[in-house]
Amino acid sequence: MASKTPVGFIGLGNMGNPMAKNLMKHGYPLVIYDVFPDACKEFQDAGEQVVASPADVADKADRIITMLPTSMNAIEVYSGANGILKKVKKGSLLIDSSTIDPAVSKELSKEVEKVGAVFMDAPVSGGVGAARSGNLTFMVGGVEEEFAAAKELLACMGSNVVYCGAVGTGQAAKICNNMLLAISMIGTAEAMNLGIRLGLDPKLLAKILNMSSGRCWSSDTYNPVPGVMDGVPSANNYQGGFGTTLMAKDLGLAQDSATSTKSPILLGSQAHQIYRMMCAKGYSKKDFSSVFQYLREEETF
Amino acid sequence: MASKTPVGFIGLGNMGNPMAKNLMKHGYPLVIYDVFPDACKEFQDAGEQVVASPADVADKADRIITMLPTSMNAIEVYSGANGILKKVKKGSLLIDSSTIDPAVSKELSKEVEKVGAVFMDAPVSGGVGAARSGNLTFMVGGVEEEFAAAKELLACMGSNVVYCGAVGTGQAAKICNNMLLAISMIGTAEAMNLGIRLGLDPKLLAKILNMSSGRCWSSDTYNPVPGVMDGVPSANNYQGGFGTTLMAKDLGLAQDSATSTKSPILLGSQAHQIYRMMCAKGYSKKDFSSVFQYLREEETF
Amino acid sequence: MASKTPVGFIGLGNMGNPMAKNLMKHGYPLVIYDVFPDACKEFQDAGEQVVASPADVADKADRIITMLPTSMNAIEVYSGANGILKKVKKGSLLIDSSTIDPAVSKELSKEVEKVGAVFMDAPVSGGVGAARSGNLTFMVGGVEEEFAAAKELLACMGSNVVYCGAVGTGQAAKICNNMLLAISMIGTAEAMNLGIRLGLDPKLLAKILNMSSGRCWSSDTYNPVPGVMDGVPSANNYQGGFGTTLMAKDLGLAQDSATSTKSPILLGSQAHQIYRMMCAKGYSKKDFSSVFQYLREEETF
Amino acid sequence: MASKTPVGFIGLGNMGNPMAKNLMKHGYPLVIYDVFPDACKEFQDAGEQVVASPADVADKADRIITMLPTSMNAIEVYSGANGILKKVKKGSLLIDSSTIDPAVSKELSKEVEKVGAVFMDAPVSGGVGAARSGNLTFMVGGVEEEFAAAKELLACMGSNVVYCGAVGTGQAAKICNNMLLAISMIGTAEAMNLGIRLGLDPKLLAKILNMSSGRCWSSDTYNPVPGVMDGVPSANNYQGGFGTTLMAKDLGLAQDSATSTKSPILLGSQAHQIYRMMCAKGYSKKDFSSVFQYLREEETF
Repeated sequence: MASKTPVGFIGLGNMGNPMAKNLMKHGYPLVIYDVFPDACKEFQDAGEQVVASPADVADKADRIITMLPTSMNAIEVYSGANGILKKVKKGSLLIDSSTIDPAVSKELSKEVEKVGAVFMDAPVSGGVGAARSGNLTFMVGGVEEEFAAAKELLACMGSNVVYCGAVGTGQAAKICNNMLLAISMIGTAEAMNLGIRLGLDPKLLAKILNMSSGRCWSSDTYNPVPGVMDGVPSANNYQGGFGTTLMAKDLGLAQDSATSTKSPILLGSQAHQIYRMMCAKGYSKKDFSSVFQYLREEETF
Repeated sequence: MASKTPVGFIGLGNMGNPMAKNLMKHGYPLVIYDVFPDACKEFQDAGEQVVASPADVADKADRIITMLPTSMNAIEVYSGANGILKKVKKGSLLIDSSTIDPAVSKELSKEVEKVGAVFMDAPVSGGVGAARSGNLTFMVGGVEEEFAAAKELLACMGSNVVYCGAVGTGQAAKICNNMLLAISMIGTAEAMNLGIRLGLDPKLLAKILNMSSGRCWSSDTYNPVPGVMDGVPSANNYQGGFGTTLMAKDLGLAQDSATSTKSPILLGSQAHQIYRMMCAKGYSKKDFSSVFQYLREEETF
Repeated sequence: MASKTPVGFIGLGNMGNPMAKNLMKHGYPLVIYDVFPDACKEFQDAGEQVVASPADVADKADRIITMLPTSMNAIEVYSGANGILKKVKKGSLLIDSSTIDPAVSKELSKEVEKVGAVFMDAPVSGGVGAARSGNLTFMVGGVEEEFAAAKELLACMGSNVVYCGAVGTGQAAKICNNMLLAISMIGTAEAMNLGIRLGLDPKLLAKILNMSSGRCWSSDTYNPVPGVMDGVPSANNYQGGFGTTLMAKDLGLAQDSATSTKSPILLGSQAHQIYRMMCAKGYSKKDFSSVFQYLREEETF
Repeated sequence: MASKTPVGFIGLGNMGNPMAKNLMKHGYPLVIYDVFPDACKEFQDAGEQVVASPADVADKADRIITMLPTSMNAIEVYSGANGILKKVKKGSLLIDSSTIDPAVSKELSKEVEKVGAVFMDAPVSGGVGAARSGNLTFMVGGVEEEFAAAKELLACMGSNVVYCGAVGTGQAAKICNNMLLAISMIGTAEAMNLGIRLGLDPKLLAKILNMSSGRCWSSDTYNPVPGVMDGVPSANNYQGGFGTTLMAKDLGLAQDSATSTKSPILLGSQAHQIYRMMCAKGYSKKDFSSVFQYLREEETF
């Protein structure tokens, strides 16, 4: 393990922090940067190398993982005045685990290619808990020959590393999954709410859906109705889980991709608007299954 | 088996015909009525008793099953000038397997109760194939004490007979399931189409969805994209299966129930409109998974 | 004026009360019934005849106006155990000013025709203020030869009496107008909100819309943005005007009519759901232009 | 007139061509560039100066108008390898009449400002006919002190030049207007179609809407139903007018702006999807009022 070369890590937020720690556990020395110096302190105390800019990370490491909140942040970290591209070495492997617009991933990839390095998009599925336990799923887009090299690192942080195709397809897979998830979650909430108002017992209705063609992950694994399942956010006042504001962000990316590729997303765009409205009505920090609660409120006269 | 008393059967269409035959196979003598005399001929030839009106069925049988296309037909068969209620005997068991508005089921039940008989709604899930093989699912609403008596008959025609609660809850369960099914089918079609346009291989995308939170019956059992699965309508030019026009009808019932109970169905109402439009664009007789084809058409300039 | 024969009036609520008074002002003696006796007291004190049932109204008057909240109420008042049809005289003119499902209007008309009387649907546009000042608009459906007779009475209560065609078309005209109104109000609210967030001054944006192709009644006469116009509900915290709950009801009727005629209403059904949601979020009693406020709320983090 | 200094014009397409000609008519010498050399020929023959790049235009003219199809084209023309910014002189006035994302307008403005020139966005309303007759409406965003200078040129091409506020607000005003236009056009089409199916005469229904609260530009000036009005696209098989594909593009811009500002556009996003679908169903080149025809198609069984 002593022979492992350093890995750069940029973006040590809620997700990046436990991901970087899992790399440490697997014996990789780290070169760290975050726009908030406080986020680096813990790693500095643990003996990892903290530097002053993405460019400096690229100067000291030829494998770099980025975990950033938005497309804009990713562009800045790669192409900004002190960005990775200023000092990246030929042959470096740059893996972006941010969830961003696949069109941006493709643009970054082109710029990276120009300087003789390799870019892969590898967004994750699974929240903070999975990041801590090293059980994330990575959806990876990029040149297939480099997948093994990427997987060596990603497998330290995730239990499932899936190759999806050319650059941008990792993002595409994540966006498509989350759009379908949002649609079926809202659909489950609507069906459960309608059924309850028509006199059905919620547990019985869930059971019927789950043995029928309405069955979906939102109905059988993450049911949004309090009292139907244990150990899910609906059983805990919609705390924890995957926040409404994050779902709204991913649906915004799906919308952008659909608009630019002229793909109709009749329900996807509506789901986007619903999660947008929920963010304005006090649901931003609740789990996205709280759409049941949002629909459930009774009319008052 | 000789001792079995006759069972009335009203409505011998695509579904009613094989259902009635399964009762015959289990040794029940039938008393038959259909508004189209031709539909009865086959049963007459087989020695079953054919009568001239629903009232006459009620005169000769104290257990009656009805299988009719619309709420209006059900009202006519029960409450019309020659309807069941004109001659029904006290203590009779009337089982309606039509898919209709649960509010209508409740009204019929009240009228039936007035004459001292028992009404249960028992709509089915599963198409003509399941009707032939006796593998339908029945969702049953009505007084719980009578469920055993109903199940005796229904079990001859279905492999799954589920008690749902008070009168109307059978319809409610079916409507809620089919609304969620429509939503997740459209969602699957949108996600698959968007992913393909973003460069993903359809089979790979389906595999990713099915091991992730986007998983649903429409993605893992009945995938709407040609080439992804065998033995489903999408593999056979969307022939067979569950017609778009039938899905549009069920969504209309969901909409009616939602409007009358003031339940919001943000995506459900949109799904209704989408299947409505498809009926006008030549998709009525295709399987409802053809929504993928409907969305897939490319813009032309 | 002494020679005028009595007019029956059933339903003396918020709207019916001032409408009936306008008939009195024009010298028509009234025969009154309301399910709530208190609603009749004022008229009794004024010397009008109060009776015990709709049947009794029909016994004493051969022209009757009904103003009721729902389709169910109209059916009860016409066809119930003590309904108008029990004692209506041949040749009577029955005018229903309720806003109900046009299909119900047609059914009532058939029953009325059977007993040799005439039915017309004549829903109103304009609120309580217009009812008081006699400035309602009536949209009238029924046999054209009877329109003059109906207009004689309706013109006492409204400044605009429009003949729309066969029975049910009065309702149809009202429902279509209100559906378009709801859609363009929500559209105006969305456009104004988006423009404001993009940096436009609300008054300037309204001015631009109103001289361009976005112009509509909701933008130029009833603008939903506080500060843009005087004398409209948005200038008065959305008090007065046309309540959200009433708009939701009318959109429910539009939805029912669209479902039964298989007419696609892609935006109309969405508008229905939006007003439905608003009713559950505390907007029921506010004017329907408060959809701007509903959309305006900012996301909180 | 001899003393007028040359004006640059980039983008001589369907709209740019007649706009540039109107500048010529007002005596402005032109410096012309288009990516398609054929588009310049007509102007060369008329004695105007044709150059090889946007940079060359900037070299020879200190007032430049750009009229380009997409945000990408605008970025290329301004910031590309041979873009305006390469040779623009201090104090130049750069007016972009393209309809593009207001966020892009703001970015371009920043870059232009860096080199000491002035940028204004001035998208147009009105089609090819208005461009020919000099009757366009310009919605102008930028520094107010420069508005008079811009208006001098724009008034040669349009009869209505409106100052909207800071850079980007011209685009914002146009996008908001067109989004509301799309929504009310679809709403009008739905209301007219529903009314017709409920038995109303289309002309009568249009008349009722136009004297009521459903009134809008789409109902009273540009009615989408054939036979209701003369001289509009619906009277001419939806030829001419404003193409569906252009409306879809503008709605895509509205969607992008709404997503990035987190503004809910519940109906706007649906309108976007509807025009998107229409483009895929053969309506791209028809006027956008053909949504009536799109909805009108009857269900077939």
